[in-house]
Formats: sequence, C-alpha cells, structure tokens
Amino acid sequence: MQRIRFRSTAGVAWGELEGGDVHVLSGPMGRRTGEVLAVGDVGLLAPADPTSIVCVGKNYADHVAEMGGDRSDLPSEPGIFLKSIATLAGPGDPIRYPRWTEDLQYEGELAVVIGREMRDVPAERALEHVLGYTIAIDVTARDKQRSDLQWARAKSADGFCPAGPWLETDLDPSDVRLTTLVNGEVRQDGRTRDLIFGVPEILAYVSSFLTLHPGDLVLTGTPEGVGPLAVGDAIEVRIDGIGALHADVEAG
Amino acid sequence: MQRIRFRSTAGVAWGELEGGDVHVLSGPMGRRTGEVLAVGDVGLLAPADPTSIVCVGKNYADHVAEMGGDRSDLPSEPGIFLKSIATLAGPGDPIRYPRWTEDLQYEGELAVVIGREMRDVPAERALEHVLGYTIAIDVTARDKQRSDLQWARAKSADGFCPAGPWLETDLDPSDVRLTTLVNGEVRQDGRTRDLIFGVPEILAYVSSFLTLHPGDLVLTGTPEGVGPLAVGDAIEVRIDGIGALHADVEAG
Repeated sequence: MQRIRFRSTAGVAWGELEGGDVHVLSGPMGRRTGEVLAVGDVGLLAPADPTSIVCVGKNYADHVAEMGGDRSDLPSEPGIFLKSIATLAGPGDPIRYPRWTEDLQYEGELAVVIGREMRDVPAERALEHVLGYTIAIDVTARDKQRSDLQWARAKSADGFCPAGPWLETDLDPSDVRLTTLVNGEVRQDGRTRDLIFGVPEILAYVSSFLTLHPGDLVLTGTPEGVGPLAVGDAIEVRIDGIGALHADVEAG
Repeated sequence: MQRIRFRSTAGVAWGELEGGDVHVLSGPMGRRTGEVLAVGDVGLLAPADPTSIVCVGKNYADHVAEMGGDRSDLPSEPGIFLKSIATLAGPGDPIRYPRWTEDLQYEGELAVVIGREMRDVPAERALEHVLGYTIAIDVTARDKQRSDLQWARAKSADGFCPAGPWLETDLDPSDVRLTTLVNGEVRQDGRTRDLIFGVPEILAYVSSFLTLHPGDLVLTGTPEGVGPLAVGDAIEVRIDGIGALHADVEAG
C-alpha cells in the first residue's frame, strides 16, 4: 500500500493512496478515519518525519570502485553519516544549486522509513520495525566532500534530501532495481542485491548506537553512476515496486 | 535572564527563572503567561528544541595541537559536523558508556541556541538571531572517531549531547571562561577569546549552506584538555555567566 504525508487545509496529515483517492489516516501507522480526499487536493511532503536521517556511504562495491577505491576500501562495518533533518525536501521541491560548490552531484537511493522504535535490534528482527520504503536523492557537493573536515556541508545543505513521492509498505527490499535518469538518460542502474550491507544489517548496526524513532529515514547507499547536475537538469530516480521521484535543478 | 525548558504535568514548556520561581512563557521567545511554578516542581530539559545540532571541530588552536595537529592543520573555514537531534539529553541525564567503545571522552563547549531563522546572514548580523547561550558536552568515542568513515557513531550515539541546565539570554560570548571538571579536578580551562572562529563567524558560515531554525543548537568547539571518562565519573562543565552542567557516567 502507498502511504503519503501531505499538507492540507487542516495541516500535515498521513493518508493511503487507492484508486486516485487519499484515505486519511489517524497517523503514520494509524487507521483510516473515514475521510477521503482527491489526490489533486493535497500537497505531497516527504513521507517521513524524522529525528534522524541516517545514510550509508560506500555501500555498493561498484560505487566504491568508481570513487577510486579498491577491494581494501570495502568496509567491514557500514560507514554511517548523517544529514540534518532540516535538509528534507518533498517530491515537488526543486534542488537548488548552491553558489559555493562547483560539483553538485546526484546519488539515487532506496530509503527506509522506521515505524517502531529500534534500539539494539538484531538484523533478524530489524524489518519488523520498518513502516515502508521510499526513494531519496542524497544530493552531494562532491568538491566539498573531498575538501571539508567532515561531510556536513557536502551532504547537509538546504534541500539536499528530497524523498518521496510516497512510502510503499509492501516491498521486499532485498532485490529491487534502482535507476537514475538525468534529462531522460539512464545514469545509474543497480539492484539492492548488490548492497554490501543489506537493509536488515544497516538497521541493526545503527540501532546498536543510536535509537531509531518512528518516522526516521535511513538511506541505504548509491550504486555506480553518480555524476554531476547542472541548473536546468531534470532528475528522476525510479525504484521498482515503489515508483519515481522527480526533481528539477534550479539556481540557488 | 535564565530561560528553561521543562516538563510539567501540562507537557513541555518554557519558563524564566527568577528568585527560585519559574515564570511560565508562551514559548521559547514568548512572554510570561502569568503562571508561576516552583523550580522543584519542574523537570529540566535541554534548553533547545532543534532541527539541527551543528558542531565545530578543531576550533581552539591548543586543542588542535593536543590532537596531534600542527599549524598547517589550523582550518581556513570552520570544520562542521552534525549530531542527530535524537542525541540531545537534559541536565539531569547520565552519560551512558557504550559497550562498543573503549575510549569515551568529554569535550566541554559553549553552545548557542538560535532564536530567529538564519539563512545567509553575515557575521555582523549573526548575534541578532541568537536566543541565548548554554553549556553542552560533546561526548565522543575517540577510538571510533579515528577508525570510522565519518564521525556519526563517534559523536552521535544515544545521549551524546547533554545540554543545559538553562540558557542565558544576556551574555557576551566573545570572552567567557569555560572549565571542565572530572570528579572535582580541573581538566579543561579555556576562554572563548581563543576560539579560531568566534560565534558570529560560525553562525554566518553555517547559515551560508544550512538554514538555522529557532531552537537549533550550535556547539562552538572545545579547548585543550579533553580526556577519557570512566563509569562512575562525575563531570561538570562551568561557563562564567551561565552556570554549571553536571552529568554522571553510568554503564551503557
């Protein structure tokens, strides 16, 4: 089932999409209230309400290789970094190209939305804590990622985490195809079976040090094919079983 | 004036401390509602409600030196990293020593609480956006800071950002003394005049890429004297003009 977070005249709410209708829910994990809206009457927001946005670097071997690494650079534990929750953007929002970078890049990713609090949960039980899956773009200022002390500016500038358009509650994340298109040309084409650390392992690892709360967003890493964006570009990330997330690149 | 955030029977609220009384406010920047509580009847929380916790690494030259750096390691721009807002802890909360680190350390810091949204604000106007100043401990797993891809686990585990006990609205942050005591022994004794990047420069820099929102917390860096914590330790960070933040270290 596709679950959305949206802005309506009554404020921010959650709903389920069915046949072009929005069935309003009592909360992200809630039941239908009986109220039904038309899709055209709601403004879609990122389908998450996080206290943490957790990301995994270097999680596809082919992406490690394209970044200049070799087999000795393959990690023994997930390489975690954070984005500020203030970077979260909705499915209709543009990506704004900041003035202070000369190498803005896309990274298409499968993202997990947490449904139940997770603390020290083993991998075997991790998926029980998932509300659903969505699509995210880990927007990255590659030049600043290389030059700054940490990746904060490179990964955590305004609007650097578009996510949506909805979350899919019924998905097996172990082998879905992800493609990224820029101006209609395929740039990334990967499958989550090639993740070095799969979704259960990532969630278990993070929960071993940082409690994950309902609404938290976990980006699982990006496959080979990352590359530059330019003002005027249109980017689309597709994940089979979820849908497509679009964003236009505008001047900052 | 000392402003507190607290838990009461009515939920989370803000207040001003005066003569042992808590004058309840309509919000963090709000006016007195007329309601007065006794200090003993409220549970103090960290005096911030952030969307971002932004930190500065290597911001006192003597601390850069003690971490093994030389003059060539002095940064030309602030070195920014993030803590998840889920790490925020209140003034009464213990620091829990995680099982996965063998080198948990304290870093006493002056922290800024933002009062007005800041985006691309120059240093000359930065302090107009500050609500007040508080005390924070940038709890750090030093071994993981050295070994992990990024500092997420090292800096962003549960409870790794104690802050409080209140914020002080009337403080000139340009030259205050900060001391850290472990079990009553002075370990850090610095002054903010020795910051490489002062509060206005830090805020201006961060606001150039990430919008700061009311309630956001900005940790300004730590002076020389960082060191290990052990289960059973009592840590206290004092800043002249604000007060003292205590925390006990407990087994994780």
